[in-house]
Amino acid sequence: MKLYVSERAPNPRRVQMFIAEKGMTGIEEVLVDINAHEHKSHPALSRSPVARIPVLELDDGRVLSESRAICAYLEGLQPEPNLMGRDAEERAFIEMADRHVEWYVTLPLAQAIRHQHPGLAVLEQPQFPEFGASQQAKAMETLRWLDGLLQGQPWVAGQRFTIADITAFCTIEFARLLKFKPGEQGLAALAAWRDRVAAR
Amino acid sequence: MKLYVSERAPNPRRVQMFIAEKGMTGIEEVLVDINAHEHKSHPALSRSPVARIPVLELDDGRVLSESRAICAYLEGLQPEPNLMGRDAEERAFIEMADRHVEWYVTLPLAQAIRHQHPGLAVLEQPQFPEFGASQQAKAMETLRWLDGLLQGQPWVAGQRFTIADITAFCTIEFARLLKFKPGEQGLAALAAWRDRVAAR
Repeated sequence: MKLYVSERAPNPRRVQMFIAEKGMTGIEEVLVDINAHEHKSHPALSRSPVARIPVLELDDGRVLSESRAICAYLEGLQPEPNLMGRDAEERAFIEMADRHVEWYVTLPLAQAIRHQHPGLAVLEQPQFPEFGASQQAKAMETLRWLDGLLQGQPWVAGQRFTIADITAFCTIEFARLLKFKPGEQGLAALAAWRDRVAAR
Repeated sequence: MKLYVSERAPNPRRVQMFIAEKGMTGIEEVLVDINAHEHKSHPALSRSPVARIPVLELDDGRVLSESRAICAYLEGLQPEPNLMGRDAEERAFIEMADRHVEWYVTLPLAQAIRHQHPGLAVLEQPQFPEFGASQQAKAMETLRWLDGLLQGQPWVAGQRFTIADITAFCTIEFARLLKFKPGEQGLAALAAWRDRVAAR
């Protein structure tokens, strides 16, 4: 299997952290320069116009994109340590937590960065800086929600480390592009959780 | 179990179609007026500030939000007819297809509607009409991709009807708010697929 990744983007990092938590070996990493639009000319990557980095190319040539779908596939190959739920009920509650992070924290933060950061102008055309600023304000609200959640439980989905922690961690690290650091925003529970994840 | 839904929104409809395809009975539906912000004062709905309609309240009082997580839970209760994959590999490929629709068709179309339609001003403040127009253009590109995909296979995830068809169908019906009809845009395969889904 080959995993196509790019530098500094949050989604490839999600899959890389997932693989590290699983302790999986034998997946070859291929670095792609998305700023140079390298993925648009690559044979494995250009097959589907909606396939974005990361992409997992299976040994039979099939191509799987979308971080969370790649993680679901890898979880099937190696179920333990379990990160996405052992049965349908647990899978549903972990998916809910993961989606809360993705849609209400990752998405507005990514839009804030894509529409405001000069370095992202090559990927997001046209940029709408005022829209980006409004999304940053929304993300700050949901980050306060996340901080509140983590005051009552050790991990994003509850009592154990799951994929939702990986999604949230990659999002918050990506938010450094907005000079965001949870400790400096008075989000103490979020900052402590961030340090627990970083220590793994 | 109680399913909290609202009228005319695409996400509650996804879960309602999922339940109908399963032929599940015994789930009570509760209609919520989101325009009047009824969900913000309702005891079951206000417990989580990020829980948006639809929400499934379980008999033990736990609350599950996020359409796709609700569907994953229901699939566990009643696995057949299968709509999300019978094993981890199939689940991963169906999740990929579902996410391609969600992130590259549903999201830009929803943003186009929320930032341009006067009727949505109560939910999206402030609206950025130029951003909405740019998202509409992106959605039209991915709708052409979807039309091309459906020229080569009968259903969005391949050879059988899955949750990805439900997501795509609800998105396209919601796009009527932009006066979008696939047949009028020269997207013949998409229009024929839409009619196949509507006939179910």
